[in-house]
Amino acid sequence: LDTAYEKLAQERQLQLTKPTGSLGRLEDIAIQMAGITRNVCPVIKHKAVVVMAADHGITAEGVSAYPSDVTAQMVQNFLVGGAAINALARQANAEVAIVDIGVATDIEHPDLISRKVRRGTANMAHGPAMSREEALQAITIGIDVLDTLAAKGLDLVATGEMGIGNTTPASAITSVLLNIPVARVTGRGTGLNDQQLTNKVQIIERAIAHNQPDASDPLDVLAKVGGLEIAGLVGIILGAAARRIPVVIDGFISGAAALVAYTLCPTVREYLFAGHVSVESGHRFILEKIGLEPLLDLHLRLGEGTGAVLTMHIIEGALHTHNEMATFGEAGVSNKE
Amino acid sequence: LDTAYEKLAQERQLQLTKPTGSLGRLEDIAIQMAGITRNVCPVIKHKAVVVMAADHGITAEGVSAYPSDVTAQMVQNFLVGGAAINALARQANAEVAIVDIGVATDIEHPDLISRKVRRGTANMAHGPAMSREEALQAITIGIDVLDTLAAKGLDLVATGEMGIGNTTPASAITSVLLNIPVARVTGRGTGLNDQQLTNKVQIIERAIAHNQPDASDPLDVLAKVGGLEIAGLVGIILGAAARRIPVVIDGFISGAAALVAYTLCPTVREYLFAGHVSVESGHRFILEKIGLEPLLDLHLRLGEGTGAVLTMHIIEGALHTHNEMATFGEAGVSNKE
Repeated sequence: LDTAYEKLAQERQLQLTKPTGSLGRLEDIAIQMAGITRNVCPVIKHKAVVVMAADHGITAEGVSAYPSDVTAQMVQNFLVGGAAINALARQANAEVAIVDIGVATDIEHPDLISRKVRRGTANMAHGPAMSREEALQAITIGIDVLDTLAAKGLDLVATGEMGIGNTTPASAITSVLLNIPVARVTGRGTGLNDQQLTNKVQIIERAIAHNQPDASDPLDVLAKVGGLEIAGLVGIILGAAARRIPVVIDGFISGAAALVAYTLCPTVREYLFAGHVSVESGHRFILEKIGLEPLLDLHLRLGEGTGAVLTMHIIEGALHTHNEMATFGEAGVSNKE
Repeated sequence: LDTAYEKLAQERQLQLTKPTGSLGRLEDIAIQMAGITRNVCPVIKHKAVVVMAADHGITAEGVSAYPSDVTAQMVQNFLVGGAAINALARQANAEVAIVDIGVATDIEHPDLISRKVRRGTANMAHGPAMSREEALQAITIGIDVLDTLAAKGLDLVATGEMGIGNTTPASAITSVLLNIPVARVTGRGTGLNDQQLTNKVQIIERAIAHNQPDASDPLDVLAKVGGLEIAGLVGIILGAAARRIPVVIDGFISGAAALVAYTLCPTVREYLFAGHVSVESGHRFILEKIGLEPLLDLHLRLGEGTGAVLTMHIIEGALHTHNEMATFGEAGVSNKE
């Protein structure tokens, strides 16, 4: 972050017609935004949520309550504007960029960004989910997508994803990179019962034991027990940070991507806002590790970028107050005695 | 609440293209809104925040970090659009209705709703803040203001206030109605130091001891140790509930008004949303008593209605998803296996 701009923004905050600190985290957001953008009064004009979609070979082991086909069906739903992320993005006036980075079936649509690396990952219970080269390719696609959005103007980007089964790789990545037992970072995803949850934990433990990902090498972890949409979001985060574009991280899957990006390059933290804290148990550990405090806690567990896009209103609220409020001097209001 | 409409809204939620419950509190909000409005798919067109402004005789005892003059100065700031609530209301497309219900000095402005009951309350350290008749008059003004807004169309209303010193009556009301020691429900307001906080607690204890408000009679409490803006907001809340208009409660002062309204008529609870939880320690006790879970926790302590108006985006997000999402059938998406 550019501390000179943070300091100028902090000084502005002290002059606005309100008691010092009374806007709480809104003040922190405005100051961080100034540091990110090198602008004392940052303005958000262009917003987007990138929804990376991919399938997971591990679904063959019964780790999800929904069939794999739902990934492609939901991508179709995104393309016609019928999903939760579409409704929330319309409300927030954010563009929805839908990327097929690894859906198992082929989808044709003029609005779809088709950058399929492969037709879903392999079943990581029996071998690596993908090769290191494929993981790198997916990251590069994320950077490309971000660059394309940035070329049109992009002031705030949210991470989103769709991939039936993707809490399983998210839990595997979290367990390995944070060295926490699988059971503590694994949740019910879209709605598993107790027995299915026990099975999911065992499958993840088996996948880690079988593939032996190297915890000191985040790319190895991402390739062996990760997912294509997670890798794509790593690219979005790295690309945005490199361009000083703030990123709102959504829930657990996006969090796993943020954890990989942070492990590769810890300074990305400064460009991140944690949209919310998911019901999925692993998410809190990720946020704590990166050092992010979630802005919302609404018991969301949908993904797609929904919580992140909802949080855009809070970030914009922080800037509206920061940029538009009168100072004590301008308003003729007496300051503290 | 109309349970028939809640049930219909619940059934709709089960058909939307997302795992059951995955939108967490957004689903609860949509269902509650359906019950309030008797509409399965409620729409928010007209929003307003009512900012009740009044002065407090108790400021003579040094309970605030700011001089009393700031109440009128900030009302002027509201009228020219320079305060935090103006910035946030512009963002949320909400009307700001500013009411002089008891400012100590006279303010002339075409946009000001001038309904002054008296020039500030009396110093409650030495006698009742106001008479029972004045408290009732202020409540009636609140109902009137709400009715006037409703006549133009009003789908969601937020409570806001301005009154230097008003955390002091809010703490007094909370202490008496909840039977909790003053020290536990008294905070630093706009920024008191330790010694000033100790003084504030003692002043409130003295005011309660001197006036002996009857805890079983909320109007007596409101008159003896309350404030005119708090009484006005009681009227806003009662009037909105009577018209089945949902109310977003802001911070501690608005919370004290909600507590009085709830004590008078417990069913108002069903029409309330708790915008956020304030830094002021008494606020949590109020929310717990009424049975409200705050939607935001951003360490706000400004008042004016700021947290409530910021929360409007969350409530609208709940309705955007509820109203606009495709069902499994419409989208051709497979439901849970």
